[in-house]
Amino acid sequence: MAEASRTSEARRDSVFGRWVVFSPARSRRPTDLKSHNPTNPSPDPGAEAPKPSCPFCAGRESECAPEIFRVPAPPEASPWRIRVIENLYPALRRDAEPPAPEEVPPDGEPGERAVRGFGFHDVVIETPRHDVRLWDLDAEGVRDVLLAYARRVRQLAEHPAVKYVQVFKNHGASAGASMAHSHSQMLGTPFVPPCVTTRLNCMKEVFDRSGNCSLCEIRSKDILISGTPNFSAIVPFAASYPFEIWIIPQQHISYFHEIDHDKALDLGSLLKTMLQKLSKQLNDPPFNFMIHSTPFGLSSSCLPYAHWFLQIVPQLSVIGGFEIGSGCYINPVFPEDAAKIMRELDCLT
Amino acid sequence: MAEASRTSEARRDSVFGRWVVFSPARSRRPTDLKSHNPTNPSPDPGAEAPKPSCPFCAGRESECAPEIFRVPAPPEASPWRIRVIENLYPALRRDAEPPAPEEVPPDGEPGERAVRGFGFHDVVIETPRHDVRLWDLDAEGVRDVLLAYARRVRQLAEHPAVKYVQVFKNHGASAGASMAHSHSQMLGTPFVPPCVTTRLNCMKEVFDRSGNCSLCEIRSKDILISGTPNFSAIVPFAASYPFEIWIIPQQHISYFHEIDHDKALDLGSLLKTMLQKLSKQLNDPPFNFMIHSTPFGLSSSCLPYAHWFLQIVPQLSVIGGFEIGSGCYINPVFPEDAAKIMRELDCLT
Repeated sequence: MAEASRTSEARRDSVFGRWVVFSPARSRRPTDLKSHNPTNPSPDPGAEAPKPSCPFCAGRESECAPEIFRVPAPPEASPWRIRVIENLYPALRRDAEPPAPEEVPPDGEPGERAVRGFGFHDVVIETPRHDVRLWDLDAEGVRDVLLAYARRVRQLAEHPAVKYVQVFKNHGASAGASMAHSHSQMLGTPFVPPCVTTRLNCMKEVFDRSGNCSLCEIRSKDILISGTPNFSAIVPFAASYPFEIWIIPQQHISYFHEIDHDKALDLGSLLKTMLQKLSKQLNDPPFNFMIHSTPFGLSSSCLPYAHWFLQIVPQLSVIGGFEIGSGCYINPVFPEDAAKIMRELDCLT
Repeated sequence: MAEASRTSEARRDSVFGRWVVFSPARSRRPTDLKSHNPTNPSPDPGAEAPKPSCPFCAGRESECAPEIFRVPAPPEASPWRIRVIENLYPALRRDAEPPAPEEVPPDGEPGERAVRGFGFHDVVIETPRHDVRLWDLDAEGVRDVLLAYARRVRQLAEHPAVKYVQVFKNHGASAGASMAHSHSQMLGTPFVPPCVTTRLNCMKEVFDRSGNCSLCEIRSKDILISGTPNFSAIVPFAASYPFEIWIIPQQHISYFHEIDHDKALDLGSLLKTMLQKLSKQLNDPPFNFMIHSTPFGLSSSCLPYAHWFLQIVPQLSVIGGFEIGSGCYINPVFPEDAAKIMRELDCLT
């Protein structure tokens, strides 16, 4: 196998500027890497009844925090297909007074700073059924979840104190999901988060020197898993995590929330396939996915290097002191090997 | 209690420049926060026999990777007190060809880069006994472990291709420890790791604007846990993790490995107390500690803002998609509350 001949290598990517150590000697064969902590047995298609204790199930809407909007279902089915609601335990509070612009200036002075915990923390319930996972929906169903994200991000973008919206999904308790019912979340923050600043600074440096966007530049076939007319799924050149996947729009687009109906269907189909492949290859691991978009109100001179993408991180390894201290990850699986395995895995269902 | 009246707040620190969301509403009282996953029962002082399968125990030295040096014990005791050895499964390899200086320039072009996986990955066995934890040693014993770190870092600093050494300890399997026997590790890397670059850039910005070192500036009594003549233990103003602790030299010193005998005793005593307090207050949680020092060969103009410190992170919360995606952490415990609890906890044993 290709991986047998590989020796350790350190790589730095052109998006986050992070060094990653690839160390295949520490692992068995990449195909042996599986979750020891699978999140769910396969859903039982007969078990349609809501779980008695789950407030995200259809019929228990009154136990949730207030609804923001819903995507209705055909009349004969459940009264809704998707609900976007407030988080009952928000990390940031929509009822707090927003910080004044001078409290969080875009290029403010460095140093210690404290602002009130204003912000939005919303939940997207992806299905009324407790036994359905995101990738069990058909491509149109995943499309509608993505369109619900985009609609809510557009609403939050109108608030003058919201600088960024982080859309994310936690699947499995050890990946941070406190509810088993399939859902995603988003946080609208009154500041630009650290990783977003780092990413934009790194992509700006590459652009200033080369005139190119780091993500438009990716052309290697070795790390490509699959493509659609509008998106590519790759294992990034310097993946921090084994079997990490990025889904990247082929066109240079800065904001996720500008996605249209057709592209959302294309993305929904590719996201479904990638989640199926992860589940099949890696024993249904806990995972996170995150949409990396662009802060609101960025000057137009930043847009040539800001390119949104979706990152999927299966949870297969433990983060220790080296990673916390240095920010440098040790990955036992070379991206080319992970991409080959994921490319060859058949998930047509 | 003080924490009952607190509302959410976002804070940014002056060392890493990270925003952290403090959200006490998501937690019970801070004193209720305990590990559900304690790492060890208390050691049984009678159980001195080596564990049959542990190669780090005295008498099983031949099963380990080569020894680099040892700290001998008095003649009547075990033949050694501390051993520094090579890691049997190194992430970076000392036998790989070091990258040439132009392959990893200090201010190199941004963009993708790959170098051979050269580097050093060493292990410090802190005690010959399987049943002794680092904080069970007396202050002199912890001092000698710190002096062993410093001695090995000085050796690695002499290699022209080693840019940085990350010293760290993983305690507990879920914090990344693959061996239960008390040990620490260090990785000598041919590049400056991402968090080190971020930290130095942030501290430089503060210094350029204020003329002050971010860590020399910390004076708040509210976040102080304990002090010695040479060190302060604090909960940082924008702690990413609940009950995170920093131990900071009071004098402005850039390099950990320059520590002398007296200061190492002072640090050993304070580190022992802090680890005892964490173990007692938080139900012996898995934890990591990391020494944040300064890259080798930095120009002297950088030294006024480079100040080393030791960071202790108990593992009490799950990292989810928000944290991975944004680099922004949600901490349910305000630093002032954590510091008060840790300050008042009596650990004189």
